Amino acid sequence: MPCKTVLASHVAKPFLEQLRATLKENSSIRPKLVGFLANNDPAAAKYAEWTQKSCEETGVDFELRTVSRNVLETGIVEANQDPAVHGILVYYPVFGDRQDQYLQNVVSPQKDVEGLCHTYCYNMYHNIRYLDDEQSRKCIIPCTPLAIVKILEHIEVYNKIITYGNRLHGRTITIINRSEVVGRPLAALLANDGAKVYSVDINNVLEFHRGEGIRLTKHDVFETDKRMEDVVPLSDVVITGVPSSGYKLPTHLLKDGVVAINFSSNKNFEDTVKERASIYVPSVGKVTVIMLQRNLIRLYDYLQQKN
Amino acid sequence: MPCKTVLASHVAKPFLEQLRATLKENSSIRPKLVGFLANNDPAAAKYAEWTQKSCEETGVDFELRTVSRNVLETGIVEANQDPAVHGILVYYPVFGDRQDQYLQNVVSPQKDVEGLCHTYCYNMYHNIRYLDDEQSRKCIIPCTPLAIVKILEHIEVYNKIITYGNRLHGRTITIINRSEVVGRPLAALLANDGAKVYSVDINNVLEFHRGEGIRLTKHDVFETDKRMEDVVPLSDVVITGVPSSGYKLPTHLLKDGVVAINFSSNKNFEDTVKERASIYVPSVGKVTVIMLQRNLIRLYDYLQQKN
Repeated sequence: MPCKTVLASHVAKPFLEQLRATLKENSSIRPKLVGFLANNDPAAAKYAEWTQKSCEETGVDFELRTVSRNVLETGIVEANQDPAVHGILVYYPVFGDRQDQYLQNVVSPQKDVEGLCHTYCYNMYHNIRYLDDEQSRKCIIPCTPLAIVKILEHIEVYNKIITYGNRLHGRTITIINRSEVVGRPLAALLANDGAKVYSVDINNVLEFHRGEGIRLTKHDVFETDKRMEDVVPLSDVVITGVPSSGYKLPTHLLKDGVVAINFSSNKNFEDTVKERASIYVPSVGKVTVIMLQRNLIRLYDYLQQKN
Repeated sequence: MPCKTVLASHVAKPFLEQLRATLKENSSIRPKLVGFLANNDPAAAKYAEWTQKSCEETGVDFELRTVSRNVLETGIVEANQDPAVHGILVYYPVFGDRQDQYLQNVVSPQKDVEGLCHTYCYNMYHNIRYLDDEQSRKCIIPCTPLAIVKILEHIEVYNKIITYGNRLHGRTITIINRSEVVGRPLAALLANDGAKVYSVDINNVLEFHRGEGIRLTKHDVFETDKRMEDVVPLSDVVITGVPSSGYKLPTHLLKDGVVAINFSSNKNFEDTVKERASIYVPSVGKVTVIMLQRNLIRLYDYLQQKN
């Protein structure tokens, strides 16, 4: 089969090694990451386990705090105020509703390794890439969307010949998921980098792009009457994140030579996907946990600059 | 029937008159409120109409901007930056999901008359009542919860004999709704004022209170195994906000002499409620629109203080 399967662990490796080297060479850098587990979700527990394992490999000091959800907010506020903590991570879902989004904003932007607080989300949607006018401090990007960007860079969907910021110009990408945590930010990120993105959810298909000739400085969003079946065959890249074991995207819809990426913990592509895809990325989680740590180091640096 | 029905228009009246007098006496005060309507929800259109009408009565300059939801964010950002706009209001739901909460945080805290941005929500949950250490600028409270507090003050559920901040001590209140926009903030507000609150949603019953003898400075939240049927009969006040025309709270569950308040646009109490309740408040919307304007005047003042 000509399809190349790219594993997240393989994409994560150079980032992991670079982080390990940085921490080894600079013994004064001892960033501490605190993770809060306040649910009984096996997917969250697995993600926590991966974080633990990856931090052991890089040398990041990781502490998992298991708490009941009704005292989680107090725990976050204490960690915000604790100078020994440099990064805070919450394993969602906690309440599984809008209260989770409230909690995302309780995490201090100075310690928000997930990049889910409003400041970082707003900057990302508006294609504002730096926190300061001097462009010395890059914004924090939400971890899973960032992991997918890094995967797309690794597999050269990003074209390095093109100017930075426009490197997806000419690419058509479908994303099946429009959650506030992954699908919508990812659509915005890729559109801001020049792609034409079809964002699919259960209700409709939206287009995210920067206009013809990517003339806009940030993406706009456009309503369409298109259906998933219309846009998948047009797409160079199809990214799925449907949280259901029953969902399978029919292989026959895919363009021959498509890049297929799945970030759901369920397998959203059929086994036959490899018969049509040029590149298949079955999962992204291991890149996500290294992006968490990359964001942590960034925030750690910003804190040192301030002091 | 001994039950006293209290109409929102009656509670709103003194606030409306006070606002009108303030604006009449100080012709230099010309606060401008901009409302964004980006849905086809008849309830939202009605709320917009009420805002319009109430602003005409008080003298607040109200402008309704009808926009498509995909350009709403741009509209909000422009209004944030426009010095001629003092208050911004969005008629939700727009997307009907977490993206609405993102939009609530796009509204500048300096113009957020609804009190739905994270800064105000966080302060409310944490019982932080002022924006500054000098206690010169009170926090903005979300409009509908604030309207219900004002109604509870009007009907003397708040006991003025007790110290400010503790005036609900001894009251047991059930709230049937735990949305992030009304039910949960309301439970926190009333618990922070000393009440023992049962917060009911479709999944469970939570207790919000400040501990025995209201010894805590802010409420905590406690899980219970209780059901709605257990807590309604214990409650001095029952507040309903179930957005369904089919839902009716059975009158037989209510304590004789209960205070019954409905903030849903559907009638959540049976017609027989008046046979048991001492006070019945069938709706709160007209108090909400005046609280919007009260928040507007407050924000207008803060802006002038800064300049």
